Amino acid sequence: MMGIEKILLIGGGGFIGRNLINSFELIKKDIEFVVLSRQNHHFSPTKTVRYVVGDYGNKDEMEVLFRTEKFNKVFHFANTSVPSSSNFNILDDVDNNLMSTLTLLEVMKKNGCNFILYLSSGGAVYGNSNDRILDEAHYCVPISSYGITKLANEQYIALHSRNYGLNYLILRLSNPYGHFHVSEQQGIVNIAIRKALRNDTVTVWGNGAQEKDYIYVQDVISIIYKLLEKGIVNDTFNVGSGTAIALNDILREIRQALPSLDVKYEPSKPTDVSNFCLSISKLKSVIDFDITPFDDGLAKTIEWEKLKIL
Amino acid sequence: MMGIEKILLIGGGGFIGRNLINSFELIKKDIEFVVLSRQNHHFSPTKTVRYVVGDYGNKDEMEVLFRTEKFNKVFHFANTSVPSSSNFNILDDVDNNLMSTLTLLEVMKKNGCNFILYLSSGGAVYGNSNDRILDEAHYCVPISSYGITKLANEQYIALHSRNYGLNYLILRLSNPYGHFHVSEQQGIVNIAIRKALRNDTVTVWGNGAQEKDYIYVQDVISIIYKLLEKGIVNDTFNVGSGTAIALNDILREIRQALPSLDVKYEPSKPTDVSNFCLSISKLKSVIDFDITPFDDGLAKTIEWEKLKIL
Repeated sequence: MMGIEKILLIGGGGFIGRNLINSFELIKKDIEFVVLSRQNHHFSPTKTVRYVVGDYGNKDEMEVLFRTEKFNKVFHFANTSVPSSSNFNILDDVDNNLMSTLTLLEVMKKNGCNFILYLSSGGAVYGNSNDRILDEAHYCVPISSYGITKLANEQYIALHSRNYGLNYLILRLSNPYGHFHVSEQQGIVNIAIRKALRNDTVTVWGNGAQEKDYIYVQDVISIIYKLLEKGIVNDTFNVGSGTAIALNDILREIRQALPSLDVKYEPSKPTDVSNFCLSISKLKSVIDFDITPFDDGLAKTIEWEKLKIL
Repeated sequence: MMGIEKILLIGGGGFIGRNLINSFELIKKDIEFVVLSRQNHHFSPTKTVRYVVGDYGNKDEMEVLFRTEKFNKVFHFANTSVPSSSNFNILDDVDNNLMSTLTLLEVMKKNGCNFILYLSSGGAVYGNSNDRILDEAHYCVPISSYGITKLANEQYIALHSRNYGLNYLILRLSNPYGHFHVSEQQGIVNIAIRKALRNDTVTVWGNGAQEKDYIYVQDVISIIYKLLEKGIVNDTFNVGSGTAIALNDILREIRQALPSLDVKYEPSKPTDVSNFCLSISKLKSVIDFDITPFDDGLAKTIEWEKLKIL
């Protein structure tokens, strides 16, 4: 008989984390989450989810937490910056996101916790490329501190795997959208819907022709679940929809549902990756999964954003 | 009329730095070096070279130095670790080598110093690969903290170039050997010669069949000189000999000159990159240069190591 699996979920108060908790609580009975955040989100605990406030870059705090809780796994979903903000204070960005992750890896090693699921970023890690389809072996030229620290974290995780037997799963996400999205800085689909509902103007950086791939957040959670269930470890996977959509097409679709959508175009920012689509062939070679068609995902997302505003 | 060019040379007390100073003093009249090291090497200043002790990661120290000296360029040759030692304390490695470089870049930006020559590492940055010839667009999988921080430094330098107009040259060196080499940890050619001269045993990690490319250090200096003279900027170049030699062949050649050479084989370390040869096609496309044949470089190196021991 397997015991309860105890997971430290770092950044679980964020977009992907909240979706994961909700779904895993429904489908997985033998799991317990301790959700660690730097600020108090005031979420109510459930039978299987507890919330603690703390800093995963603080070695002493983490030593106590790991000794007390004896985690089986760590899911690391935290990042203090987004690409555009990460370059404002690079030293802080490295300190908050790279150094903190290295501290976490040290504490994990010391306490015998030997699994990490790390959420990386498909767009930010690869950077701009002349190739439209990017597979996991594509040369990486991150163009923001956000991307550089994510890539360095990936490499340090792999180093801990080779040298100390850590097992890992690294997922390079494309652009997720859907329930529990709250950022006002990143995630154009939710931001555009929200602004349309509030009669605000949406700012588009560039001419809107840029094509990227977008994935409904529940698809991401389902992919994570399948990879974990199948016991896939020590590998890095792109996680995307496999197709790219032009931003202007997305805005057109949103306008069909929400005619109040108002768009303003501004010159693109140097931290924006312009066109990309992640190859998901490697992911498909290890698990079967469905991708929610963009129309369906969008309809569900509009519904959720409407509920939130009421 | 061009004025004197004032260069801050970080890590100029080391192997490559000392060769560069010696050659540049001979061939370039309109140059002045301030050599910054964390420890005092007790070198004597010359008309064009001054030595200062300081930490390039200390922002306040650097602010004063840059304001006082008004450097035109920075040559950054420093690293506190070698691949094998860099994993012992990863947090210190990131602090000493990545954070320090980010501080330096900040101070350069603030003081209008807009050129950096950065010495990176061909072997450590690419990591192990199934491909034997590695060009600059090859996927990088560094397998030591040394390699991860070098790659992150490259990416932050490129970011400063895109966002703040910094000009840079990044050189990914293969394995240099020759005059002024002093490390007992890295650089098998000099180490083997030195040990043979002292009747010490040379330790080889692995079976000695590993093939890497080795470059005579004066060739590196000549390549740097030509790139600078030609004004090549904002690019990354492999710098190697273009051919790989098996370690056992090198040891055989050394034994011909120094029959006292004694070799012991030990299991390879996980931080060692096993086989690699840097493609130098890109470098050849921008400058003409000669590569010293290995026999000749070796003979000169043996001569120098003998002089040192007398």
